[in-house]
Amino acid sequence: MKVVTFGEILLRLSPEGHKRFLQAEGFDAVYGGGEANTAVSLAQFGYDAKFITKLPDHEIGQAAINTLRQYGVDTSDILRGGDRIGLYYLEKGAAQRPSKVIYDRAGSSVAAAKAEEFDWERLLSGAEWFHITGITPALSAECAKTSLEAVKTARRLGITVSCDINFRRKLWDKDTAGKVMAEILEYTDIYIGGRDQAEELFGIPTNARNDSDYEAYKAVAEKLKERFGLKKVAITLRTTLSSDENKWAALLYDGEKHCFSREYRSLIVDRVGGGDSFSAGLIYALGEGMDTQSAVDFAAAASCLKLSVEGDCNIMSADEVKSLAFGGGSAQVQR
Amino acid sequence: MKVVTFGEILLRLSPEGHKRFLQAEGFDAVYGGGEANTAVSLAQFGYDAKFITKLPDHEIGQAAINTLRQYGVDTSDILRGGDRIGLYYLEKGAAQRPSKVIYDRAGSSVAAAKAEEFDWERLLSGAEWFHITGITPALSAECAKTSLEAVKTARRLGITVSCDINFRRKLWDKDTAGKVMAEILEYTDIYIGGRDQAEELFGIPTNARNDSDYEAYKAVAEKLKERFGLKKVAITLRTTLSSDENKWAALLYDGEKHCFSREYRSLIVDRVGGGDSFSAGLIYALGEGMDTQSAVDFAAAASCLKLSVEGDCNIMSADEVKSLAFGGGSAQVQR
Amino acid sequence: MKVVTFGEILLRLSPEGHKRFLQAEGFDAVYGGGEANTAVSLAQFGYDAKFITKLPDHEIGQAAINTLRQYGVDTSDILRGGDRIGLYYLEKGAAQRPSKVIYDRAGSSVAAAKAEEFDWERLLSGAEWFHITGITPALSAECAKTSLEAVKTARRLGITVSCDINFRRKLWDKDTAGKVMAEILEYTDIYIGGRDQAEELFGIPTNARNDSDYEAYKAVAEKLKERFGLKKVAITLRTTLSSDENKWAALLYDGEKHCFSREYRSLIVDRVGGGDSFSAGLIYALGEGMDTQSAVDFAAAASCLKLSVEGDCNIMSADEVKSLAFGGGSAQVQR
Amino acid sequence: MKVVTFGEILLRLSPEGHKRFLQAEGFDAVYGGGEANTAVSLAQFGYDAKFITKLPDHEIGQAAINTLRQYGVDTSDILRGGDRIGLYYLEKGAAQRPSKVIYDRAGSSVAAAKAEEFDWERLLSGAEWFHITGITPALSAECAKTSLEAVKTARRLGITVSCDINFRRKLWDKDTAGKVMAEILEYTDIYIGGRDQAEELFGIPTNARNDSDYEAYKAVAEKLKERFGLKKVAITLRTTLSSDENKWAALLYDGEKHCFSREYRSLIVDRVGGGDSFSAGLIYALGEGMDTQSAVDFAAAASCLKLSVEGDCNIMSADEVKSLAFGGGSAQVQR
Amino acid sequence: MKVVTFGEILLRLSPEGHKRFLQAEGFDAVYGGGEANTAVSLAQFGYDAKFITKLPDHEIGQAAINTLRQYGVDTSDILRGGDRIGLYYLEKGAAQRPSKVIYDRAGSSVAAAKAEEFDWERLLSGAEWFHITGITPALSAECAKTSLEAVKTARRLGITVSCDINFRRKLWDKDTAGKVMAEILEYTDIYIGGRDQAEELFGIPTNARNDSDYEAYKAVAEKLKERFGLKKVAITLRTTLSSDENKWAALLYDGEKHCFSREYRSLIVDRVGGGDSFSAGLIYALGEGMDTQSAVDFAAAASCLKLSVEGDCNIMSADEVKSLAFGGGSAQVQR
Amino acid sequence: MKVVTFGEILLRLSPEGHKRFLQAEGFDAVYGGGEANTAVSLAQFGYDAKFITKLPDHEIGQAAINTLRQYGVDTSDILRGGDRIGLYYLEKGAAQRPSKVIYDRAGSSVAAAKAEEFDWERLLSGAEWFHITGITPALSAECAKTSLEAVKTARRLGITVSCDINFRRKLWDKDTAGKVMAEILEYTDIYIGGRDQAEELFGIPTNARNDSDYEAYKAVAEKLKERFGLKKVAITLRTTLSSDENKWAALLYDGEKHCFSREYRSLIVDRVGGGDSFSAGLIYALGEGMDTQSAVDFAAAASCLKLSVEGDCNIMSADEVKSLAFGGGSAQVQR
Repeated sequence: MKVVTFGEILLRLSPEGHKRFLQAEGFDAVYGGGEANTAVSLAQFGYDAKFITKLPDHEIGQAAINTLRQYGVDTSDILRGGDRIGLYYLEKGAAQRPSKVIYDRAGSSVAAAKAEEFDWERLLSGAEWFHITGITPALSAECAKTSLEAVKTARRLGITVSCDINFRRKLWDKDTAGKVMAEILEYTDIYIGGRDQAEELFGIPTNARNDSDYEAYKAVAEKLKERFGLKKVAITLRTTLSSDENKWAALLYDGEKHCFSREYRSLIVDRVGGGDSFSAGLIYALGEGMDTQSAVDFAAAASCLKLSVEGDCNIMSADEVKSLAFGGGSAQVQR
Repeated sequence: MKVVTFGEILLRLSPEGHKRFLQAEGFDAVYGGGEANTAVSLAQFGYDAKFITKLPDHEIGQAAINTLRQYGVDTSDILRGGDRIGLYYLEKGAAQRPSKVIYDRAGSSVAAAKAEEFDWERLLSGAEWFHITGITPALSAECAKTSLEAVKTARRLGITVSCDINFRRKLWDKDTAGKVMAEILEYTDIYIGGRDQAEELFGIPTNARNDSDYEAYKAVAEKLKERFGLKKVAITLRTTLSSDENKWAALLYDGEKHCFSREYRSLIVDRVGGGDSFSAGLIYALGEGMDTQSAVDFAAAASCLKLSVEGDCNIMSADEVKSLAFGGGSAQVQR
Repeated sequence: MKVVTFGEILLRLSPEGHKRFLQAEGFDAVYGGGEANTAVSLAQFGYDAKFITKLPDHEIGQAAINTLRQYGVDTSDILRGGDRIGLYYLEKGAAQRPSKVIYDRAGSSVAAAKAEEFDWERLLSGAEWFHITGITPALSAECAKTSLEAVKTARRLGITVSCDINFRRKLWDKDTAGKVMAEILEYTDIYIGGRDQAEELFGIPTNARNDSDYEAYKAVAEKLKERFGLKKVAITLRTTLSSDENKWAALLYDGEKHCFSREYRSLIVDRVGGGDSFSAGLIYALGEGMDTQSAVDFAAAASCLKLSVEGDCNIMSADEVKSLAFGGGSAQVQR
Repeated sequence: MKVVTFGEILLRLSPEGHKRFLQAEGFDAVYGGGEANTAVSLAQFGYDAKFITKLPDHEIGQAAINTLRQYGVDTSDILRGGDRIGLYYLEKGAAQRPSKVIYDRAGSSVAAAKAEEFDWERLLSGAEWFHITGITPALSAECAKTSLEAVKTARRLGITVSCDINFRRKLWDKDTAGKVMAEILEYTDIYIGGRDQAEELFGIPTNARNDSDYEAYKAVAEKLKERFGLKKVAITLRTTLSSDENKWAALLYDGEKHCFSREYRSLIVDRVGGGDSFSAGLIYALGEGMDTQSAVDFAAAASCLKLSVEGDCNIMSADEVKSLAFGGGSAQVQR
Repeated sequence: MKVVTFGEILLRLSPEGHKRFLQAEGFDAVYGGGEANTAVSLAQFGYDAKFITKLPDHEIGQAAINTLRQYGVDTSDILRGGDRIGLYYLEKGAAQRPSKVIYDRAGSSVAAAKAEEFDWERLLSGAEWFHITGITPALSAECAKTSLEAVKTARRLGITVSCDINFRRKLWDKDTAGKVMAEILEYTDIYIGGRDQAEELFGIPTNARNDSDYEAYKAVAEKLKERFGLKKVAITLRTTLSSDENKWAALLYDGEKHCFSREYRSLIVDRVGGGDSFSAGLIYALGEGMDTQSAVDFAAAASCLKLSVEGDCNIMSADEVKSLAFGGGSAQVQR
Repeated sequence: MKVVTFGEILLRLSPEGHKRFLQAEGFDAVYGGGEANTAVSLAQFGYDAKFITKLPDHEIGQAAINTLRQYGVDTSDILRGGDRIGLYYLEKGAAQRPSKVIYDRAGSSVAAAKAEEFDWERLLSGAEWFHITGITPALSAECAKTSLEAVKTARRLGITVSCDINFRRKLWDKDTAGKVMAEILEYTDIYIGGRDQAEELFGIPTNARNDSDYEAYKAVAEKLKERFGLKKVAITLRTTLSSDENKWAALLYDGEKHCFSREYRSLIVDRVGGGDSFSAGLIYALGEGMDTQSAVDFAAAASCLKLSVEGDCNIMSADEVKSLAFGGGSAQVQR
């Protein structure tokens, strides 16, 4: 299956190991971003994944492209130009010390790109699936416009659209986000969102009594489906126990059944990209024609495994995910 | 608030990651020591912290000073001269394997310094608080004399004195330690000590039935206060679960109330300096005029967070500590 | 005591930290293999340990020898020649992601060595113990022949023989393994094996109801002893909780008593070599004349501690193991 | 222009920095091989470069592919299967200490591949240039057969063929090499070879009086052209001054003119791949229609620059090469 | 002596060792910038050096400050606020491959700062010397205004002003630079500039026949002195032989004598900051009252030594510089 | 041949790469010392080399032993006990910046050892050669006494004694050194010394007109031979061109012929241990019965090659040295 994603890819700079920013002598460098991460994961699953963005025409921009190519993502339609690649500094937390992110992404090539630079008819030609997240329209008014054109074009071409809400307070406010995302959801088939985002952006209350009250999200999913005319609604149910440990589960509602995945409890190697790996897992599972229960199981297992992988991207084959989701996957060394 | 601390700063050499001494190809190098660590933490909290010691007049001595300056500690009164900087080799433990320390600190510049080299009237001028630990008088007879002169001068100048007992079996024996520390405590306002140190040095029995019997320490605190005419008594209640995991709580007794902090259970990045960060937390909290409960909560949160930081020093702002101690601090990434 | 072990030592290449194979920019290199690891551990315990193998006559072969020498193993009878050193790529797992091994060991110098190259009368002269594992006869038909000659010679010379079954599916099939190992066990005094290996190779059913049903292994031990005329039977009882955590216990049966060790639950630094460190612990404990309960306690503590050490080998002194097995060993820093 | 190359890509393991094999604690890992290196360099120049080989179907094989993809090489026709990836250990020399290579490449997937696995009609379809070196036919008799089929097919399809002699004593003997390469040269347009290779393999004497007697190679080029009916003959003229320093020049003979490049003297960062980068430079220059003098200047500048780049591959754009070859390229920082 | 410098400090990100941008897995991080580098060098010489800038109020901004504090620079008047810290990517060249710089400094806190944020009367109070470079006014029109106010205030307060022309094509054009710098030079005492900058910015032709025609710069110095009413004119005479090797000399003209320094030829560890270390050397030498010949010798030796030091800053004591400049400084190990 | 050496082995701590002490975040750790280095080199040449010293009974002491064992040195007679291992900090120079050494070796286990702890009859039994340097007697009066007993015992047992003068100003003064070394030389067969040491310690003037006046040393060698009744006199002729480059040659006088080695000019990877590798080369060459010219050629080639090896020790086989000394050794990669 051919999937197209659109967004920003950033340079991520993180101090080595558990060092704090003030202790750093250097930074590990990886390139990532919600939609790029999803494309990389899909390429590992064997899908034909293309990523659309704009990057500056210098070696650091090229290095971002090379990372994507390394993992088999089609980068042939990435625009080049503009002033800079966005970046962020990431300090990995530990125990009771939370991770910290300092963004320096304003004015990036893609944030400054004009909507007319993207010819969506051409970019989406041959694609069966288009994926976007709420980060892209948050980058600039022009990016919001471009995002809307993208989903409209996809709808017109009969391409399945998935959208991960991914609300980022540091990028825009709730009201603007709520309005823009509502418009995008009009052209969306598969909704993906975290626990509280339906409440924050669209005023759909959760009414969960506590972190473990997963049942409460059934009603949220139903209301989302109804409000935006969605085909399927996925809600990720993450619980942060500490910087080192997470619980992770998900709900997928297909209009008939509400299916919950298994709940995973895991030690964390790198928490960035968990949601993106869920999206990739869901797109793959649905693309493969899995039923609702299997699809949410695959997607949750994919994101559980992501937490054990360094960097933003889920470098994990479909077989490895299936082994955890469906098989008797064990952590014993095979030899 | 201006705080002065006095003691030894050592070069700490530790094999990379989890390697044992016999596997080391090199050593990570940091500089630390009880009183220096406390000064660094106080400087991160925004206090004017000055550290007094003596260091050899070569580049390794200068590197120790530069580390302190980097974190904003006032090093302008550090003496230079003598033969060597003390050092220790630290092998970090893991799971059931304990951490190991090999000291090579005999004959260091500060241990060999004469009491008359330190003009405490001048060194303490303008200070509101003086902090010392039981390590400094243990370095040499001369250091014990200097320490006593320091606290006497502080008392005479009306400066608050805190003393962390920090009994080190490898440096001196119980009897000598008991005598010297008793004399220093005569001039001390705030006592800080671990679970068993009052019993070891001063024969005040604990009578705790087990590691979790925190209540038993109330009586210990009362007796300490009475014996030495202290203003406040803090007892840290650490439980080592494994090399990777600790429980941490504390008691602060102000003559009226016994306040226990929250109990933290944490995975450990670096266990050195936990007590020193507690002292810094307590000095800051009391300096800020927090009440007894808040003060012990702040100090315990500070030392809990220290365990998540590489090196001896608690590179942690007051806001970060408050977020854990009082706020709804969560380990989620903020973005 | 002088112990001789015989087998293959491989170059192990593992990506740094938690990186996956596809993310590796380089490999940490250590040298190890079941019987070599056991020899290294015995040398740390103070025994005179000699390792027999064949290695190519180039610097990488020499580097393997130098690693053994560094840890005090007698390498003076290692043959040189042949084409290559076997190697394997190891990706360390994390959380739900299992560790991965890719072997590239075919055609190694020892696998290609002829039985007549090894003069066991000479090689075993002066030895009191000979140790082998099921990996060595699996390397090639010639290695199986050599292994058999080794144990026969040892029996003739009155040398105690221990054999760790160590069945590796990737090296040979159950039937061949069952036949060859049965023949070797005829000349073996001390059997060491994992949970299911008696069932897989010799058809002795375990009938354990679950992972914690340790009692079920008593009957297995009895049958093994009877079938092969063994002196003692040790069964290791490992439970893999995740890539980061294990439970570990063991049973030792001496014909009269079934003694179970304490059960350890531990976070894992490096899981390779756990079984080999158990063998070394058992050989040392029995060599020192410990009783059955103490012996299994020592051996289980040794392998528990191995999991906290980087690399294949248990760099751990006998005193350190005793402190965990028998003493009030604590993870507190000693200072 | 679309170029296809065919050969082996190996895992190269080198100790960090200047360490000797016996001092290595780990290995830097890169993937390279003559024809793969040429493909990577051509892709950096902007050409459509495809590499043909066979690699094992595991993650280390995939990692080799990912390296090629990262640099934009088309890997879509690489066969998967077989037992192993060939590898070599490289110790970088310094000063009077020469670099050392230990090969462990026997039995690699490509060496063991059958000629019929490669459908050259299909693999070469659309290509304008085919490049091979003398290493590929040296891997195995089957590889020699495959190589010959490849050049025959290329000739039939009207594709330009270049061949870098690249004689490796450790892989085959002079006589076999001479016979096989002579046959391949029958179907070759552009000959590339080092100083003495025409003499070693084809008995064409050089008669150079010393290292700097470049003129002597004119006659060699003429005889090679005549003997094998070549279109152009390139001879690289490398002088190894020490492990840290080289002189580098080249001769290109087009049947009319003998053009010598500028002579470069350079400090060396990594000497592997110098010849391969020359081939890539020559293919690009001729592909771009440069005249003989410009072509040899570009190719020599390309290989001079390669020596300043870590790894096997010449990560260098065409503009960067032109700046050295033709422009006033200066080593000053541009800012 | 108390010296104040004003400018931008950037985060410099450079791939490890000789790696190119496209090969980088991470970046070494140092903080530097012309005027900050000069302040650090002066602090190493024992001067009281203060650096003025504006940095964002987050941990990366603080890390820049901590680097300065570590080396003893007074950072107490650095403004905090604004959006970002400027940064640049630096690829170190080797041999014929030039170093590369990619700037990403637009919109930094200091570039966006308003002139009125800097109260020069207060900032310069107590200072004896003020140093600026042509980079600061190039950052923004507001920075040009601030720079001018700074030098005017300095002149009014009787503070010696030195200005290093440091023309950067990537920041502004020649014409604007020429006008702004001419105005700043009206208030400057000591001019420092590279070979061609007087010609580029002020149209004063050099007429040097070649790189070694140092004599030609005497006339340039005379004209500069006359045109701008300077006290002293220093011209640095750098010759880039390759990325690994430089020649370095300088001319100092005091209105009477033209003194040339010794010419140094050196292998380069890090070429960034060579000019800044010259400025620091000159300020120190003149501050110490050295005569013109000694001053230029000291300054040239300082910058020669800088090239052997990693990072932007000249971590070098005055004694070390004197040993090269005046003593029989030898590269032998002292022991 | 069996060779015994006696002295101190120190922990050497050096900042990574070209970093200065003030920039170090950690230290590379190697163990070395004049006589230990010589023993390691001899073991690489295939000789049976034993090293005698005293080391503390902790893991850092053991690590020093393990390094020696790794390279095949016999450590079975090393005494354990005492307080500490001596150490030194080494900052590697570059270009005009000299290397720096900070010693912290006072009070080491060997320096504090009593002469009666060493039973030289037993320690030297079976040896054919004993080697010592002027560092050992400089460590303490007791070490001087022990050294003298060692050479006396060697003479009595008919063991050849070589002594490398190795005068270290930081350890003792000229007069004491002159007296002690003169006494040791009474029992010495082979004298090894640097250019000026005969003048400094024994008042034998050199009268060399410049660094290249090697002929002047013939007379020095003759006088030394005569004064101390030596069999052979070797004088090393090192010229330090910069921290990166050396010239190296040597003279060997056998009472009849004065033989000069080839002069080498080399870039330096690590300059420590150059003299020790010369001693090892000379001992091996004479042990193998080479004639005077060959012996000095071998020894000079050995020390030339040492400069290309990281660490104190010459990890170099006899064949590798012969290839440079006598063969057509080239720096080309062999493949």
